[in-house]
Amino acid sequence: MEFKIKNEYFNKAIGEVSSAISAKTPFPILTGIKLTACEDHLRLTGSNSDIVIEKVIPAADEGAVLEIVKTGSVVVTSRYLTEIIKKLPGDIHIKVNEKHNVTIISDEIITYINGFPAEQYPKLPEFENSHGIQISSVKLSGIIKQTVFAVSKNDTRPVLSGVHMIVKENHFSCAATDSHRLAFLETRVASESQGSFIVPGSSLKELLKLFAHQEESEIQIFSSESYLVFKTKSIMLCSRLIEGKYPDVTGLIPNEAKTVIKLDAKKLLKGIDRACLFALEWKNNNVLLEIKEGTLKISSVSSAIGKMEEIQPLLEITGERELSISLDGNFLMDALKAIQEEHVLLSFSGSMKPVIIKPVSDESYIQLVSPVRSY
Amino acid sequence: MEFKIKNEYFNKAIGEVSSAISAKTPFPILTGIKLTACEDHLRLTGSNSDIVIEKVIPAADEGAVLEIVKTGSVVVTSRYLTEIIKKLPGDIHIKVNEKHNVTIISDEIITYINGFPAEQYPKLPEFENSHGIQISSVKLSGIIKQTVFAVSKNDTRPVLSGVHMIVKENHFSCAATDSHRLAFLETRVASESQGSFIVPGSSLKELLKLFAHQEESEIQIFSSESYLVFKTKSIMLCSRLIEGKYPDVTGLIPNEAKTVIKLDAKKLLKGIDRACLFALEWKNNNVLLEIKEGTLKISSVSSAIGKMEEIQPLLEITGERELSISLDGNFLMDALKAIQEEHVLLSFSGSMKPVIIKPVSDESYIQLVSPVRSY
Repeated sequence: MEFKIKNEYFNKAIGEVSSAISAKTPFPILTGIKLTACEDHLRLTGSNSDIVIEKVIPAADEGAVLEIVKTGSVVVTSRYLTEIIKKLPGDIHIKVNEKHNVTIISDEIITYINGFPAEQYPKLPEFENSHGIQISSVKLSGIIKQTVFAVSKNDTRPVLSGVHMIVKENHFSCAATDSHRLAFLETRVASESQGSFIVPGSSLKELLKLFAHQEESEIQIFSSESYLVFKTKSIMLCSRLIEGKYPDVTGLIPNEAKTVIKLDAKKLLKGIDRACLFALEWKNNNVLLEIKEGTLKISSVSSAIGKMEEIQPLLEITGERELSISLDGNFLMDALKAIQEEHVLLSFSGSMKPVIIKPVSDESYIQLVSPVRSY
Repeated sequence: MEFKIKNEYFNKAIGEVSSAISAKTPFPILTGIKLTACEDHLRLTGSNSDIVIEKVIPAADEGAVLEIVKTGSVVVTSRYLTEIIKKLPGDIHIKVNEKHNVTIISDEIITYINGFPAEQYPKLPEFENSHGIQISSVKLSGIIKQTVFAVSKNDTRPVLSGVHMIVKENHFSCAATDSHRLAFLETRVASESQGSFIVPGSSLKELLKLFAHQEESEIQIFSSESYLVFKTKSIMLCSRLIEGKYPDVTGLIPNEAKTVIKLDAKKLLKGIDRACLFALEWKNNNVLLEIKEGTLKISSVSSAIGKMEEIQPLLEITGERELSISLDGNFLMDALKAIQEEHVLLSFSGSMKPVIIKPVSDESYIQLVSPVRSY
């Protein structure tokens, strides 16, 4: 196996597949990146028990200046490969001999690292390009950001550690809940199939990182046995699915509200953020919201440290004009951070009922936060 | 006690004195910032067992928009004060009652925190402005950066954990060594006194941070009992001194060299950095330097990972033309990072003798790195 490639391009590709690789794996071979040189492309593969990321660099790609001298494959420890390539000044020339010794040449610098035979690398699931949905990477990232934060952080109910994705009749919905709060979003997509999948929150967070530094591209999403595949022209992330039945969340959303208020989203977020300073000693970061005389009072108390209170004007109010409710300040902050709009609507059905949080102009995005006891 | 002040200005001042405060102190009062409102200024004090930082904001300072309504003093936990002020949107109005309850008002937001009586704050050493040396903050920071990294990281010989500063006849010298390497620098200053001080490396690192974001100013350095004081118009850092006798380091510097080579400093640093990748499994990060046929070969080996080698051209060579020496790659990197010039001189007296590292155009800055055994 032998190839030449432009340093920056190889460096970036290594970074992309490395995000699938965990240094703490019971299988040493999985700390490595598999490099496969084919006639017309170089493929990099990284994997852990949850996800696989595969990057294909075509020989025809002008940016890569890739030249495949001899086909073959090898596995190289990701950590060392990353460090070495990052520190080499010039373009990269890699040669691998029969003993899997990898020679990396760059200008006057020669580096040798011990590789592993590619045959030792676990066989990955194979996918045929099947129908599914097609969505822009920017739109998909937005949807994931607006839901994934609400997945459960503990493992008592594994299905809740994932985001529930449903594709049905050109509709694509995502739901995440940890049973104290819910984020639910629905959008229209071009779909040729239907299905329901629970994708681990951790995989979706990797997906976000992967596309954060990429140009906008079309992502194809399709399923294959117990995997969901996210694929663009040059990169593929495939995630294990969580087995089980996801609870029906649409039934949780209250239909009628006693009080609806409209607020400046950024200002409210800052107020809750301040109140959280004194809410730390409560198990649920209790922040008290009180609607009274056309204003919203935000307050929190910590017996050890002190207390704070502030008044924010209501931009609009409908329904009952007095209400007091204790909420988890951190959940409220997460909910408000996910809303990209200037104004937000909060709908209350009573002190012991969940609050609905919605952007003013988007009916398809709904969040729910349950109240906490304030004693 | 009561005063009003501009948010950003107060925020910055809190940040400055906070750097003296450690969250892990056996004395809870030292987790606080002491605020003292006098007729014509506000003073902030932060301290740990090693250093005291004191910031004075004059009422006359136009940037601060400070208004002292009522004099007095209080101690407020640094962590909470920092967080609260950072999160408040408008200018700050602080009132303290007889029970040391601190009320912070900013726009529509009222925060209460529990303070401590200022009388509980330990009495700090008092200094009279005495003679000493005067030096620009930029120059002093440069001198500290070029020496402090070489202090000992362990406590077996406490004097070696400090930088040895000597003032004598308008000369100011700094030396730091951990007995494997040495950094020594001498400069001319205006001095009206003389003395010899061992200043803890940790204090000097705080000093660097403190002046990193300040405009250039004149620093006065003077001693007072077991303290050394660094003082500008608005801020003062005073550091405990280390007691004991510092070893005479000038005797360590070899007078004659067998081989002197001149190299591109940045290129050499990058080469050593690469070689360090494979030097990790050695106790001393062994990197091998070989001078041969007018070039420098840098190499390192790790039996588990691999090896690397590279050739760099010598810009000049005088003396014996063949030499091989093993050095601690990390020490070499530290030494090269401290040299701000394009070219560096390495002087060798033999494989088992320390190497002298010097910038080409500055005779007053000398570094020494001892060889390591390479087996």
